[in-house]
Amino acid sequence: MSVDPAAAQTLGTVRIVGTGLLGASIGLGLRGLGVRVLLHDPSPTALALARDMGAGELDPGDEPVSLVVVGAPPDVTASVVRAELAAHPNATVTDVASVKGGIAAELAGAGGIERYAGGHPMAGRERSGPTAARADLFLGRPWVVCPSSTGQAHERTEAVRMLAVALGATPVFMPAAEHDEAVALISHVPQLAASLVASRLVKASDPAVGLAGQGLRDVTRIADSDPMLWAQILSANAPQVAGVLKELRTDLDTVIAALDALGAGEAVGARAAVAQIVHHGREGRGRIPGKHGQPQTRYAVVTALLPDQPGQLARLFEDIGEAGINVEEFSLEHSPGARVGLGSVSVLPAAREELERALTERGWHVVA
Amino acid sequence: MSVDPAAAQTLGTVRIVGTGLLGASIGLGLRGLGVRVLLHDPSPTALALARDMGAGELDPGDEPVSLVVVGAPPDVTASVVRAELAAHPNATVTDVASVKGGIAAELAGAGGIERYAGGHPMAGRERSGPTAARADLFLGRPWVVCPSSTGQAHERTEAVRMLAVALGATPVFMPAAEHDEAVALISHVPQLAASLVASRLVKASDPAVGLAGQGLRDVTRIADSDPMLWAQILSANAPQVAGVLKELRTDLDTVIAALDALGAGEAVGARAAVAQIVHHGREGRGRIPGKHGQPQTRYAVVTALLPDQPGQLARLFEDIGEAGINVEEFSLEHSPGARVGLGSVSVLPAAREELERALTERGWHVVA
Repeated sequence: MSVDPAAAQTLGTVRIVGTGLLGASIGLGLRGLGVRVLLHDPSPTALALARDMGAGELDPGDEPVSLVVVGAPPDVTASVVRAELAAHPNATVTDVASVKGGIAAELAGAGGIERYAGGHPMAGRERSGPTAARADLFLGRPWVVCPSSTGQAHERTEAVRMLAVALGATPVFMPAAEHDEAVALISHVPQLAASLVASRLVKASDPAVGLAGQGLRDVTRIADSDPMLWAQILSANAPQVAGVLKELRTDLDTVIAALDALGAGEAVGARAAVAQIVHHGREGRGRIPGKHGQPQTRYAVVTALLPDQPGQLARLFEDIGEAGINVEEFSLEHSPGARVGLGSVSVLPAAREELERALTERGWHVVA
Repeated sequence: MSVDPAAAQTLGTVRIVGTGLLGASIGLGLRGLGVRVLLHDPSPTALALARDMGAGELDPGDEPVSLVVVGAPPDVTASVVRAELAAHPNATVTDVASVKGGIAAELAGAGGIERYAGGHPMAGRERSGPTAARADLFLGRPWVVCPSSTGQAHERTEAVRMLAVALGATPVFMPAAEHDEAVALISHVPQLAASLVASRLVKASDPAVGLAGQGLRDVTRIADSDPMLWAQILSANAPQVAGVLKELRTDLDTVIAALDALGAGEAVGARAAVAQIVHHGREGRGRIPGKHGQPQTRYAVVTALLPDQPGQLARLFEDIGEAGINVEEFSLEHSPGARVGLGSVSVLPAAREELERALTERGWHVVA
């Protein structure tokens, strides 16, 4: 996946309202593809920064535009979209807010609503604001497009799709309600879980937090987020998030009951209940897709010992390439103390035997 | 934060019982420092693999040893320690189990208990077994030492402390009860939270999990763990884990009530309650020491975009080899549906700039 100059050429002049991280990143990416980009933001500072970053020109306000991208905070997005639909009577208007159902509801009956198609690029960073902008922020990421009605004119959703394609993202069409359920599950509940785990550390002793390892760091990484922004996002998706949290609470109650029973010496079934939760978690984790949107578990992994000498990785991939086998994923584990590294090559299951044979023939030690 | 050959010289002959990930990693590290290491494991396969990895020699069984390290599964650790204390009447015996109170209780009154001091190196990997062993697994990590009594002879805890120091770990003395409360907070509850979040994905739709991003991947990474092992660990620390989970449930109930109120349009105070949880999480996250700390800064990571075409990995490693740069670790990731992968090359920090320049010069797109 890479940026697409041909898609960019279909966009015409693009107005970006709200030059934070996402708005400025879109501007940067489009400018790099030769698109004319006009910027607007209620904050003169954010606007000037985005311009200086190269995200576009200040919008003089008297020029017709084909596409308006609203990058406003979630709780004002609907009113900004409404104003843009009125101010630009021929333009397609889209937004980048992370919850779509509420905005669609607020916009019901708005003038020009047939020209609005919501969007949600699934990209972000821990840093915010125009100075954190990157032209490549959207490369390879999903970009959800939500038509405003089932019969919406093709040209409107097509304009948003082309915006995503131009920036190297993967457009995913989805009704707003389905989108909101999905992000509750894959974004909003994980965010809250990270916050709930991290909250336990507030009163922990120094020696206790001193034992923290990579596991805790990974689980709580996204807890280092902006409370105001997240209060807006979670509030906008409250029923969906609450629904998933209630399911999680049911499992949590089961674990607590099992651990209480184990603590009281009543182990019958309790240990199995705990193992079951971990087992289900592993199963769910396996559903997170890897390359090409396929589940990770669909790859076969072939592991070869790599002598600790220069040039071994290049030789390995030359040998795999000669055998005509496509590598889906690869990881190298290398320990200075060990005599060898372990190279794990993920391939489609059908290619496993061929890869094992090809590597063995070429003198590699394949680990079972 | 490096290995300590002088500390290693104080250890004498070391017997390792249980050559899984931790046992074999200890063996690898000690062998690299010239320590005589004798290996034992009830599984002939695990034993032979550890020997072949370079973790030590097969224990002939008739040689006196100074230190025994028990790397057995948690639920048999106490009985293995007891047997080793009896079989090696002069040796110090330690273990690496991740819960200490129950083992201490099981060992109360055991013959030779004054020679036992528990240990817990805070290091691990998602992969297990001797082939996942690394000599540098313990570098910069805390290694908890739990004396078996307050009056235990200095030489016994000192032997365990020297083991940790030799392998580059940081010894932390802590009573067993305090250790178990700490790991409930910083390891066991995060593990369960990851499992509970990941469990929600089991019944999710394919388009929903297709939107998964790095946040979900990080929160659920440790959910990809062994259910049997974790049932043992969590059961062994049941009261402490249940205590922390009940505090977490109180916060969870608050969030659910606030979201329910928001969903019903009763927003007074509810949005603030949600923001408060995220705020507390951020505060707790800030208590984790060395946020950009030890394990991560060991290597610098340079990430390049890899077109999804045959031969790209071979070309990448040829280019790195030509530049004379040594690759410490490498991982390849693909986003759903993307035609480009992200290759993350880990190198010594001093080589970062040179690698970035070398790759850019050779036409690679290096991601900032």
